[in-house]
Amino acid sequence: MDQKNFSASIALRNVQVTDTFWKKELELVRKEVIPYQWDALNDRIEGAEKSYCMRNFKLAGEVNRKRRALGTSYQEVTYPTNQWVTFPDPEKELEERFYGWYFQDSDFAKWIEAVAYSLTQYPDKALEELADSAIDQVVEAQLENGYLNTHYGINDPKNAFTNLRDAHELYCFGHLVEGALAYYEATGKTKLLNAVERYADYIGTVFGLEEDKKKGYPGHEIVEMALCKLYEVTKKQQYLDLATFFVEERGKRPYYFDLEHPEEKPAKEGELKFFYNQAHAPVREQKDATGHAVRAVYLYSGMADLARLTQDESLFAACETLWNDITQKKMYLTGGIGSTHLGEAFTFPFDLPNDTAYAETCASIGLVFFARRMLEMNPDSKYADVMELALYNGILSGMAQDGKSFFYVNPLEVDVEACKKDERKHHVKHQRQKWFGCACCPPNIARMISSVAAYAFTENATTLWFHLYMGANLTKVVKTQDKTTSLHIQVESQFPWSGEVLIKVRPEEPVEATMAFRIPAWCKHFPIPEELKAIATIQKGYLYLTKVWEKEEEIKLDFPMETQYLRAHTGVKEDLGRLAIKRGPVVYCAEEIDNSTDLKAYFINPKKEIIRKTVNLQGEELVMLEVACKKMKADEQQEALYQEVTGTSFDELMEEATLKLVPYYFWGNRGEGNMTVWLGMR
Amino acid sequence: MDQKNFSASIALRNVQVTDTFWKKELELVRKEVIPYQWDALNDRIEGAEKSYCMRNFKLAGEVNRKRRALGTSYQEVTYPTNQWVTFPDPEKELEERFYGWYFQDSDFAKWIEAVAYSLTQYPDKALEELADSAIDQVVEAQLENGYLNTHYGINDPKNAFTNLRDAHELYCFGHLVEGALAYYEATGKTKLLNAVERYADYIGTVFGLEEDKKKGYPGHEIVEMALCKLYEVTKKQQYLDLATFFVEERGKRPYYFDLEHPEEKPAKEGELKFFYNQAHAPVREQKDATGHAVRAVYLYSGMADLARLTQDESLFAACETLWNDITQKKMYLTGGIGSTHLGEAFTFPFDLPNDTAYAETCASIGLVFFARRMLEMNPDSKYADVMELALYNGILSGMAQDGKSFFYVNPLEVDVEACKKDERKHHVKHQRQKWFGCACCPPNIARMISSVAAYAFTENATTLWFHLYMGANLTKVVKTQDKTTSLHIQVESQFPWSGEVLIKVRPEEPVEATMAFRIPAWCKHFPIPEELKAIATIQKGYLYLTKVWEKEEEIKLDFPMETQYLRAHTGVKEDLGRLAIKRGPVVYCAEEIDNSTDLKAYFINPKKEIIRKTVNLQGEELVMLEVACKKMKADEQQEALYQEVTGTSFDELMEEATLKLVPYYFWGNRGEGNMTVWLGMR
Repeated sequence: MDQKNFSASIALRNVQVTDTFWKKELELVRKEVIPYQWDALNDRIEGAEKSYCMRNFKLAGEVNRKRRALGTSYQEVTYPTNQWVTFPDPEKELEERFYGWYFQDSDFAKWIEAVAYSLTQYPDKALEELADSAIDQVVEAQLENGYLNTHYGINDPKNAFTNLRDAHELYCFGHLVEGALAYYEATGKTKLLNAVERYADYIGTVFGLEEDKKKGYPGHEIVEMALCKLYEVTKKQQYLDLATFFVEERGKRPYYFDLEHPEEKPAKEGELKFFYNQAHAPVREQKDATGHAVRAVYLYSGMADLARLTQDESLFAACETLWNDITQKKMYLTGGIGSTHLGEAFTFPFDLPNDTAYAETCASIGLVFFARRMLEMNPDSKYADVMELALYNGILSGMAQDGKSFFYVNPLEVDVEACKKDERKHHVKHQRQKWFGCACCPPNIARMISSVAAYAFTENATTLWFHLYMGANLTKVVKTQDKTTSLHIQVESQFPWSGEVLIKVRPEEPVEATMAFRIPAWCKHFPIPEELKAIATIQKGYLYLTKVWEKEEEIKLDFPMETQYLRAHTGVKEDLGRLAIKRGPVVYCAEEIDNSTDLKAYFINPKKEIIRKTVNLQGEELVMLEVACKKMKADEQQEALYQEVTGTSFDELMEEATLKLVPYYFWGNRGEGNMTVWLGMR
Repeated sequence: MDQKNFSASIALRNVQVTDTFWKKELELVRKEVIPYQWDALNDRIEGAEKSYCMRNFKLAGEVNRKRRALGTSYQEVTYPTNQWVTFPDPEKELEERFYGWYFQDSDFAKWIEAVAYSLTQYPDKALEELADSAIDQVVEAQLENGYLNTHYGINDPKNAFTNLRDAHELYCFGHLVEGALAYYEATGKTKLLNAVERYADYIGTVFGLEEDKKKGYPGHEIVEMALCKLYEVTKKQQYLDLATFFVEERGKRPYYFDLEHPEEKPAKEGELKFFYNQAHAPVREQKDATGHAVRAVYLYSGMADLARLTQDESLFAACETLWNDITQKKMYLTGGIGSTHLGEAFTFPFDLPNDTAYAETCASIGLVFFARRMLEMNPDSKYADVMELALYNGILSGMAQDGKSFFYVNPLEVDVEACKKDERKHHVKHQRQKWFGCACCPPNIARMISSVAAYAFTENATTLWFHLYMGANLTKVVKTQDKTTSLHIQVESQFPWSGEVLIKVRPEEPVEATMAFRIPAWCKHFPIPEELKAIATIQKGYLYLTKVWEKEEEIKLDFPMETQYLRAHTGVKEDLGRLAIKRGPVVYCAEEIDNSTDLKAYFINPKKEIIRKTVNLQGEELVMLEVACKKMKADEQQEALYQEVTGTSFDELMEEATLKLVPYYFWGNRGEGNMTVWLGMR
């Protein structure tokens, strides 16, 4: 670890994204997703399972007021609270109780976070007012002691923090912290931030190393990275200490989750349990990414934050081990992670089935969290390569082109008939869905996309790193020993369709500073521009330019974006003898609508040239690919189930064909149909 | 339907199997399986879940005696009987109640059937005495009214036949009929036959078209074919009528299973239910093989029996439709059926996943039942081809070479690691198992193998059909208009390793008769021997020789047994671009022990010649195959998960290799390891 190279995301208020590709996504989030999401939080989406999120906050506020009037025990333990989901009796009126999933509060938290990021790019008075009034409602739900969670808060505050394994209180808290910080950073308003600080302080009285405090940690992680961020903004040591506590307690024996659930069988001597929650062992002893994939990468992100903030080498090493395990053995070509729907979890090395994949959108988002945090400690392009891969593929695939429907699961192969008829594939949807009752992915996509610039650029006092390329206007505040000044930077890029990037730099006054440009791994031959050779160095996949920036100037970079045939490691049995096609950061797939229903009948040859065509599909300009290939002739329905193939007949099985490919993220936007990323190889 | 061509299995007492291949299997059944099975029925197998089968019969006999002494209500309804499985409290002594699965009585029935067949080939006084005493015990369990089922009989006779859908009473009855008939035919002893006739007569008072009788039919079929056989042996019309009743009632609306289970939601108007039990529609309206695969083919077998016995053209047509659906769209290359473990069931056309296959041994056995019954009506070699395929592959694979462990599930591809770690494949075992508590397959294999000659040869008055080739001495009783005499026939064959067959015929006196020899579908060029051309005709895949047999003579047939590359119908997505290798009736597979762990890395080319090697493996002489092939070079563990493949690097991915193959039925006999039938194609 080299502290000199530590960095942090550029503040979103210092970036304006102007990029063609990302601006479209940002506007979709602003115009479609955020309003839709607000309707969802308020149960106004027809046909969708109700969220009850804002209704719960309002009710919790009312109950709070009644408590103050009628006594603290008002409404307590009237209803059982220890259940994952509670829906009202359709025959009855709503009762004074929590409805929805355990973790429903987090829907608001993710929404306010997306709103905050969006406001940095598109100031919007009406939206800000709406957000302020929503915050008012939420803060009303806070108890006297600082506790702020409607699930227990409405009916059963005495049982707060008694089921850390399942009840998602620290998860909701973590999201609320992230939302509050984003809103504070976007607007300077402190109301929600003050509320979460009060809540955090209360949590600090419940959990800790002192004898009278609980030694628990959350069943679903996020609080670790949220507390680190809270510390970074507030500089209050107690938040860093609390984050440290939650990370270090995890996996200690006897298991806290066993102590918390005496009604269940505890772990036997030597038995490892709670893999699902990454709580089977202390974090430094965890060598394999395991369990629920979203939870896993959220934990690892928190570990990375903590490693950087405390300069903990052994924690960094643990993160690196887990990073390598994921990216070398457990990641789909699209940046998807989590090979099985059973527990939405990691499985074993090289187990990457395409048609039964889980590859949850949220898990890829979590992987990007993890990647940026690793970059913040260690600017190695390997992290940014994965970040770029997940963003352009396994994350964007999660949202329809119109921003109105979403994939939770992102398979690399879909056979519509099998998804409908094979129970083993029922989790794989062949069309994006409206908002779910359990709505993790859509608001997570919204907050990821609307803060994408924070992943593109990180900085420290004198260096600006370009991890992703996107059109943007940035202000880089440079702090040297003798002055603080700014560089105004304009980035022009046609990513992901072209690798040319133009960077215009205008210093307010001459100042020495460094710009670091990632050289993408997909770019095999990057020519360092002649005029930069004198000042350029390359370290860990970044081109560093250090100099005194004196006057306005332009840097032209060109990352040749070639179409590539890719194969998987031979350990990945599902992909043996198969090829995929990728161009720059974009993974391609074949869809039924452009080809035919039997996509497994196509065989491609890596000696064939792939042709590029810029097309406009559903209002989006994108690059389609075409390649000449072989296709097995389809048998008639009634032909024999098994037939002899002789040397002579072999060649006759195949016919010449052309395969057309679209970006993976785009799939499933043109009606129902089969899809595959991996293709047979000839 | 042409009644002239109707036939029936040759009586086992008229055949002595002398075949090298099958005799080994028969002896295994006699020496290993039957004694092991008897121990299992008596709960003497260490480490296996107890059967309680003979214990239940003994207890039922005691309870019967007590009832006679103490009154008919003795012991009634003391214990709940409506549950799938009941095991004793390990802390307590056994109580006076039924233990085990609903259908545990059938274990005895299958055992006695296997014993009976074995006695026809190997007279064995001690075994016959043991069987007689077992029969004594079983018959003691019969109630006054003829009812004979220990599950309800011990505790709850009043509730007999109140849960046809689940409780397997008619299933156990059907097996008991088949066992009784086999024992009668082998020994001439009638005790068990009389008991099942009494039971059948009682069932005739419970079920029928009369208003006061139940209109039910079994949830698990077999009674249909059992009653047909009982009719054929006893010639009592009421048994044929009862079989007809059970077949014709099936699937009528409202569903009997709904009426029987008022506690559950009945089918809505227009809703189809009970696919699992093939009870969703009347049998003639069933066009797709559906539901639990064993139940399905047992039903279809009964339908075929009934079609033949009643010369019902529409029922034959229904059977033919279902036969075609299975063999053209839903059958594995090995003769396995049932693509999913969920319901152990058929799925949709061309859905034949190799690694998650169910392909239960019992289902393939049921398919052979069905095939022979179709042959008995319609001597078309297509049925016998499937019979041969299932016998040499998907059925024999069910039993270890030592007869001591068994596969229930017969996948075409096994990855040991995935079977252990992937919950979706937990039903796929990579090593054969000891007897299960729910022990359908092992005793079913035993009765199939020990009666294999009954599938090889069927006959009518003047014609003998050779459906399978195996060394045997047969007596063909020929009944012409003017005389009854015999042909003594000796068959010599080295099937499945060589296609040469020598048939020696010695007539007791000159008589006109027909011999019909199946020309296997795998034999593309069968040369009709010159000397036979004058009298030979070929119909539906059989070579018919009709003549007056005057003196001892020899017929030499040669079915050239070439090694073949096979591909699946292009509708089978799992097998697209893959090849399998078959020689004669034997499907081959590659095992890790002969090759390497990464079997999916091998790519074979149908232009390459396959080399044959006769080897001795674990005491068995068999033909192994070897073929030169390409193999993808295995990456090191830490190599990149995804790599570019260029036209140049492409050729370097592959290395020359040799692939060794063993017969599929032999797999898994040499320790734990991966296996695959389908291989990549180059």
